[in-house]
Amino acid sequence: MPTYLEQELAAAKVDHLELKHFFYDSKERYEAVQKLDALFDADPLFQNPENDHFLSRSEQVRLAIERGFRAHAILKKNRDLLGMHSPMHGDGGMPVGRFTGSMCGLTDHYALFVQTIMGQGTPEQIREWLPKALNLEIIGTYAQTELGHGSNVRALETVATYDETTDSLVVNMPTITAMKWWPGALGLLATHAVLHARLLVKGKDLGYHTVMVQLRDEHHKPLAGVEVGDIGPKMGGTTMDAGYLSLHNVRIPRTNLLAKFQQLAKGGEYTRAPKQLAKIGYMTMMKARVTLVWGAMGYLSKGNAIVFRYAAFRRQGFVDSKAGIAGGEKKILDHVILQSRLFPLVGLQLALFFSSRHLANLLKKFDEVVKKAGKDIESIDTSMLPELHATSAGMKAFGTEMVLAGLEEGRKCCGGQGFTYSSGIARIVLDYIPNVTFEGDRIPMALQTSRVLLGALAGKVPKTGSFAYLARSGRPSLRRVDDVEHIVSVWEGIARNAVNTVGRQLYFSARKHKSQEKAWEANTVRLLTMAQAHTLYQFVDHFALGLKELPAKAQPTATLLFRLFALTKLIEIPVVVSGLTASQGQAIDREVKALLKGIRPNILAFTEAPAFSDRTLNSLIARNSDDIYEGLVDWAKRSPLNKPEFSESLHKDVLSKTLNAKYLAENNARSKL
Amino acid sequence: MPTYLEQELAAAKVDHLELKHFFYDSKERYEAVQKLDALFDADPLFQNPENDHFLSRSEQVRLAIERGFRAHAILKKNRDLLGMHSPMHGDGGMPVGRFTGSMCGLTDHYALFVQTIMGQGTPEQIREWLPKALNLEIIGTYAQTELGHGSNVRALETVATYDETTDSLVVNMPTITAMKWWPGALGLLATHAVLHARLLVKGKDLGYHTVMVQLRDEHHKPLAGVEVGDIGPKMGGTTMDAGYLSLHNVRIPRTNLLAKFQQLAKGGEYTRAPKQLAKIGYMTMMKARVTLVWGAMGYLSKGNAIVFRYAAFRRQGFVDSKAGIAGGEKKILDHVILQSRLFPLVGLQLALFFSSRHLANLLKKFDEVVKKAGKDIESIDTSMLPELHATSAGMKAFGTEMVLAGLEEGRKCCGGQGFTYSSGIARIVLDYIPNVTFEGDRIPMALQTSRVLLGALAGKVPKTGSFAYLARSGRPSLRRVDDVEHIVSVWEGIARNAVNTVGRQLYFSARKHKSQEKAWEANTVRLLTMAQAHTLYQFVDHFALGLKELPAKAQPTATLLFRLFALTKLIEIPVVVSGLTASQGQAIDREVKALLKGIRPNILAFTEAPAFSDRTLNSLIARNSDDIYEGLVDWAKRSPLNKPEFSESLHKDVLSKTLNAKYLAENNARSKL
Ligand SMILES: Cc1cc2nc3c(=O)[nH]c(=O)nc-3n(C[C@H](O)[C@H](O)[C@H](O)COP(=O)(O)OP(=O)(O)OC[C@H]3O[C@@H](n4cnc5c(N)ncnc54)[C@H](O)[C@@H]3O)c2cc1C
Ligand SMILES: Cc1cc2nc3c(=O)[nH]c(=O)nc-3n(C[C@H](O)[C@H](O)[C@H](O)COP(=O)(O)OP(=O)(O)OC[C@H]3O[C@@H](n4cnc5c(N)ncnc54)[C@H](O)[C@@H]3O)c2cc1C
Repeated sequence: MPTYLEQELAAAKVDHLELKHFFYDSKERYEAVQKLDALFDADPLFQNPENDHFLSRSEQVRLAIERGFRAHAILKKNRDLLGMHSPMHGDGGMPVGRFTGSMCGLTDHYALFVQTIMGQGTPEQIREWLPKALNLEIIGTYAQTELGHGSNVRALETVATYDETTDSLVVNMPTITAMKWWPGALGLLATHAVLHARLLVKGKDLGYHTVMVQLRDEHHKPLAGVEVGDIGPKMGGTTMDAGYLSLHNVRIPRTNLLAKFQQLAKGGEYTRAPKQLAKIGYMTMMKARVTLVWGAMGYLSKGNAIVFRYAAFRRQGFVDSKAGIAGGEKKILDHVILQSRLFPLVGLQLALFFSSRHLANLLKKFDEVVKKAGKDIESIDTSMLPELHATSAGMKAFGTEMVLAGLEEGRKCCGGQGFTYSSGIARIVLDYIPNVTFEGDRIPMALQTSRVLLGALAGKVPKTGSFAYLARSGRPSLRRVDDVEHIVSVWEGIARNAVNTVGRQLYFSARKHKSQEKAWEANTVRLLTMAQAHTLYQFVDHFALGLKELPAKAQPTATLLFRLFALTKLIEIPVVVSGLTASQGQAIDREVKALLKGIRPNILAFTEAPAFSDRTLNSLIARNSDDIYEGLVDWAKRSPLNKPEFSESLHKDVLSKTLNAKYLAENNARSKL
Repeated sequence: MPTYLEQELAAAKVDHLELKHFFYDSKERYEAVQKLDALFDADPLFQNPENDHFLSRSEQVRLAIERGFRAHAILKKNRDLLGMHSPMHGDGGMPVGRFTGSMCGLTDHYALFVQTIMGQGTPEQIREWLPKALNLEIIGTYAQTELGHGSNVRALETVATYDETTDSLVVNMPTITAMKWWPGALGLLATHAVLHARLLVKGKDLGYHTVMVQLRDEHHKPLAGVEVGDIGPKMGGTTMDAGYLSLHNVRIPRTNLLAKFQQLAKGGEYTRAPKQLAKIGYMTMMKARVTLVWGAMGYLSKGNAIVFRYAAFRRQGFVDSKAGIAGGEKKILDHVILQSRLFPLVGLQLALFFSSRHLANLLKKFDEVVKKAGKDIESIDTSMLPELHATSAGMKAFGTEMVLAGLEEGRKCCGGQGFTYSSGIARIVLDYIPNVTFEGDRIPMALQTSRVLLGALAGKVPKTGSFAYLARSGRPSLRRVDDVEHIVSVWEGIARNAVNTVGRQLYFSARKHKSQEKAWEANTVRLLTMAQAHTLYQFVDHFALGLKELPAKAQPTATLLFRLFALTKLIEIPVVVSGLTASQGQAIDREVKALLKGIRPNILAFTEAPAFSDRTLNSLIARNSDDIYEGLVDWAKRSPLNKPEFSESLHKDVLSKTLNAKYLAENNARSKL
């Protein structure tokens, strides 16, 4: 008999296999991923991940690291399958976690350390470190944040002082707040760090630079002057070794300054980066942000896969309340109210898919510009940077916030089960939580977007690409709820109006305060709203454009999902921004009901498109089989708390002190009568 | 030198001590609580709770249970201090967790098991079980939810069959989905359960009843026919032993049927509860809900205390961006944007304080009604029940949701630190999470409120008490943002309009569908909105009424907090409900800026009013001292992951397989040159 899931997919008019091919770019690539999945499935190290939840943190960390190394080996050996040279290469959208189902500090090694070498190293430096990093001969951390400073990167205190006599740099952290704090892979794994430090040469502060510092020796012991460790247990990311680092008089060769854009010659002569490249040091962060937007889509896809499977399995609530249990119970997915909470999340998933693809393409283009320039860095055309900057920051800020809220809403829809680790979704929420914070939370991120938008208003940034709409005009009011183009144009109008209005307010505020900075601080709430309106418009726009690319059979439902997403978001933003009237709100409410109904039959085809296996979902409430309750009970029985020794000693040492043994014995005897 | 916190309090115009007395009812009671706190502070078992985070779950559970028993002893010995006969008696607003800083299954024993005996037992039954339960001679669980059924309590499958030959009841769980699943204290502690089961007598199904079942014997081993254990690790409530239970042919005396309202005589003659008391079996749940609304206030108070302390300690962002570090950095609490995220949470805290007090008073009144009736249960006047029912359900639904969202927003405002367990706030969020789910999540809860509201519309429930506004009319539009009464009247109008509109829609929908039930299902989203509007109005109303009771010096700031809360909520609800125009939205935006500024100087006096000590906050980022960074580093170093053995074996078994020892050694040597 087909499982609950197979029944759902069979009844759908949308072909989930076609969608899988689409989301994995092609049939071939999809099948390659399936082959890789099978290799992981066959490896004993990846079996029964549901038991991980019974382990102590130390045991979990160790297992996750072992799996990370094993994954590295498997992916390296099978690099032809996906055309990957290493677990991260050429494959931004599919991190190692896709296959391992768990994560460890190697993720940061690939995504931050390797990227920094590639982006900021000279050809010689790349030759020196990159192959070793890709082979895990060295493992690195990206060490920027300090105990005293996260958002305010301009106040970091670590210094690298040039010592002419030995032609080396001496790295120091002069205060406790200067300790590096948070870098991933630092706690246990890293042999090296790409470290943010102020460069001091001949008493002159040359600002922030990145230097390569070895931290641990061949026995993996900290080098002299290095104090390093894990920062302790966290609410999620249990298996990640976020670390602390204190450096005192640690000497590194001058040539360890990453020098693609600026150089320090022997003797201390310093060549500044060309002016237009001053901020290119932040490219690693920008790339990381793009990865985070992809990642937002990935996490939400996984969360949705779990939640929708369970919602299609779980039955709760009588079909006919008079008939009671005899009339059967509804799948919770068939409750309109649950649909209204869950279906917009599938819309968000699609919006993020098309938007992150767009962002990744922008980044690729810029990478090509840099590559083409070669050694002639002066010739790099940086005109794309503002757009890349604004879009990645905004999508990071609002994409991650929406995904976290969405995952949590999905989790809640699972009722009590969503709260146990057996559900899978609980751990996903916890692991996702820091995504809204790291690389900067929604405030610094969104304000960066606002700054570029104001630049565009002021004519300092060209009104092209994603700013092109600022050169247009008009603010159509919502007249029809069934017309994709019209809905996009409403969003365009909202975004433009928000940018223009806030721009004007800031102008007057600056005149009043006689200070650009005070005006900025006084208007941060509005500046955020403006960045939000702009970014949501981008999401809506990319989603609408993407619709036409989908397999023909999937387009009608995808269009309903688009409308659901774009219309419900319209209700969510403050009325000051949306300009929505109560009667427009009512029209949306009515339409939402119809949309939910239209979407329902095909929804599982969409949530199954990312093609997670039972093993990678690691969710006992979402297995593709009908014995889900049996699985939950079986898992519970394996819990360490259920070992007889545990409860025996608890009874002996604690409970027996107050429990009334005599009464319990008597009463027991009595009930046997 | 005064600490950062002492400085804040000294600079405030509001006297935090006066507020403390107010929130603890009186100076005397506040001081009694302080004395109790000191007793716990002095007990070694409660020291250094920050180290709990390093323990395995089994160790944490054991420690929490030991602390629960110790707390029981301390509170019993010092019962005169608070006039408490047991840790829970007469003191709904101050659970044991207030003092222990941790929780265990005993919480459920007190709040659910004991309450059920008191509420549903006959005088004889109460005499038999209550003293033993209060002395922990027996420990109990409240076992309602089953693996297959949570929200739909009408579909529970456990049966208790009357066996005439032995004059006993035989309890059975016929299917896997009938297993009890989730009850707190069941996993490890409970000797007894008050169990929800369908009563079958002579082949007749008499519906749900509560029976007392002994589960474990004098050695704390499961009795024959009993299978019991912990359901496994969860994302929060780590130290709670939520359990599973399977019963097969477990025989209990007929007299174990809780029989205050209905009786089963020897031979099987059954006396039904008087009609108006049919639903009184749910009183335990209603009381639990009231506790949950108090608890929402308690959790938020604790979270706010942590977050505001850290925000007053942490500095991030230059005062003057040109001057850079030389010009100093701002407290993050001084960033307008952070204020806009955090200050409304203090408003919510006050709203919950006054609302839960109101709710507790309602409950007390009804308890007196029942008490007065004595054995003559027919004479119980149940006219208060609909109000108690609707208000407690609505406040549970929306209060817990707002508090969870608020705690999480506060946590995010701590940046990265909010993510580590050292912060305290991380654990609070996790432990709070299930509060939105248990006893029923916002959907069944809010729909109960809607049902009573529709009853009031239809004239089946009197329009008195919190429904009195439905008998009035009018819908004032927001004209002034500075007038408390006007703002309340706007909320009243919104609530009334929502109830009337949805009532009308449902009426027409029922005619269209020719079925009340289909109309209900088709309109659940609207029904929720209606319950939300009603409940928010209640919160706003109780808050406004409470203002005048506060100490005179605190009233001006409290009034600003009221306006901030009531106005920002107005923006948050959908425009269809608020009827807000864009220009009213702008007026609120402007006012919010002024409100934040006015509130800022006194805010810490409010967040400190609940008087948590450093120990009970258990937050290393919120200690009342200026060496917070030192404390974080010190804690991290104690983490098990930083034991040399751990990283040595990790290196030997895993890392050394790929790391390039030769390169690491050479390079290390080179940098020493
Ligand atoms: C799991 C995790 C992994 C991480 N990995 C790395 C890593 O690999 N490498 C690395 O270098 N770092 C890493 N980080 C650090 C991360 O980048 C920082 O946590 C982040 O930048 C926020 O800084 P903070 O924690 O110091 O928060 P803070 O800067 O202290 O911010 C606290 C609050 O104040 C607000 N705030 C701060 N300044 C302003 C302002 N000017 N105006 C208004 N509001 C303001 C913030 O929005 C926030 O709400 C990691 C963090 C986490 C949680
Ligand atoms: C930490 C914790 C402690 C608990 N302690 C106890 C305890 O001590 N004793 C006890 O008996 N129970 C306890 N419970 C169980 C708790 O009361 C249930 O989890 C709760 O009632 C929800 O039921 P469920 O988990 O079965 O969710 P479900 O009923 O399966 O609900 C799943 C989802 O479907 C939705 N849904 C269900 N029915 C409908 C409908 N008709 N219309 C629309 N939507 C619907 C729900 O809103 C939810 O989003 C506890 C639970 C937790 C998490």
